[in-house]
Amino acid sequence: MQPAVVLLSGGLDSATVLALARAAGFDGHCLTIDYGQRHRAELAAAARVAAALGAVAHRTLKLDLAAFGGSALTDASIAVPTGGVQEGIPVTYVPARNTIMLSLALAWAEVLEARAIFIGANAVDYSGYPDCRPEYLRAFEAMANLATKAGVEGRRLAVHAPLLDWPKARIIREGTALGVDYSLTVSCYQATDEGAACGVCDSCRLRRAGFEAAGVRDPTRYTHRP
Amino acid sequence: MQPAVVLLSGGLDSATVLALARAAGFDGHCLTIDYGQRHRAELAAAARVAAALGAVAHRTLKLDLAAFGGSALTDASIAVPTGGVQEGIPVTYVPARNTIMLSLALAWAEVLEARAIFIGANAVDYSGYPDCRPEYLRAFEAMANLATKAGVEGRRLAVHAPLLDWPKARIIREGTALGVDYSLTVSCYQATDEGAACGVCDSCRLRRAGFEAAGVRDPTRYTHRP
Repeated sequence: MQPAVVLLSGGLDSATVLALARAAGFDGHCLTIDYGQRHRAELAAAARVAAALGAVAHRTLKLDLAAFGGSALTDASIAVPTGGVQEGIPVTYVPARNTIMLSLALAWAEVLEARAIFIGANAVDYSGYPDCRPEYLRAFEAMANLATKAGVEGRRLAVHAPLLDWPKARIIREGTALGVDYSLTVSCYQATDEGAACGVCDSCRLRRAGFEAAGVRDPTRYTHRP
Repeated sequence: MQPAVVLLSGGLDSATVLALARAAGFDGHCLTIDYGQRHRAELAAAARVAAALGAVAHRTLKLDLAAFGGSALTDASIAVPTGGVQEGIPVTYVPARNTIMLSLALAWAEVLEARAIFIGANAVDYSGYPDCRPEYLRAFEAMANLATKAGVEGRRLAVHAPLLDWPKARIIREGTALGVDYSLTVSCYQATDEGAACGVCDSCRLRRAGFEAAGVRDPTRYTHRP
């Protein structure tokens, strides 16, 4: 088994990515960022997922992105939209979040001498997020291979985003086949501390629609229906 | 004046960069990262420098890179070398540090709608640091322009590293001409909490030699002489 750093948010996508990484022969060193997100329940979810899917290590790093604000997820004065998924970049977009998380994953990968980073970026469902696009991920990988001692010495690092063009239904079906227990995950942008989901934010809507399309029972506790 | 995010460590290089950014017509929004560095005196130095050089804002963000270790600056069990500057990547190299810092600067720049980030990277003195090389900085800039809402909308961001190929003596001379008070700065990797410098680590050696070559009086309090 080769070591890999897996960015684990506690949501549905990254849990599936951890299962895929393991199935592909990687030992998962899972990294979760406590960045001041509104939906703190995902942090406990990440720990549950890491344990359930046999991660060899799990670290949660604290980093207060609320100091910059600019997102409904890090600024309590910006409401989470609940009226349905819209076109364009949503207010739940967190400036440079994937770049920051991938950079921290890169640091750990360099210390572990890991040659792989896994991220649950998904360009289909979240087409509005600039830092989920394939061209962005390729550019990050190119930069990362110039940034480190390993890169200088010719040991290439790969950024794997296996879900990049998968619809949510496929993610759920493949994850279910690999034994992912989605009842452990939290997707809701305004989940209660106990992990109950609002049912009406974009993330809840995409999750619910994904389970419906996959024909898999949705284990989520929703407090509202759209 | 245009807004710019300036990475400010509290050392000699980034203080000079702040002065250069201001002289070039930028309002400096200074960002300092408290990453668990051994030489914590540089954090207080950064605050002094920001105030002295008229920064419009200064934020210090906490991020525990000691969780990953792998560097003499973040792992107390790895000694800071004091025998003289060697070839190759030194143990004071912090994995992915510039990538992490630039990513955090990118997040703040996006919220501020700033089109410029300044960093005191210097490829001459620290030729051993992969993330100070020009090709690395160009790759970061390319990635950053794909990562953000501004990038998607065609508002380009530039990563400025004005010291990139300046010898230390030139940095000191130009900074002195711009009124930088280097007595406020701390370079030493094992500075005391009061900011006294060891005089024998790589950073002290390069600093001292820079003042000598510049013909400028070195205001540093060194506790040892090599």
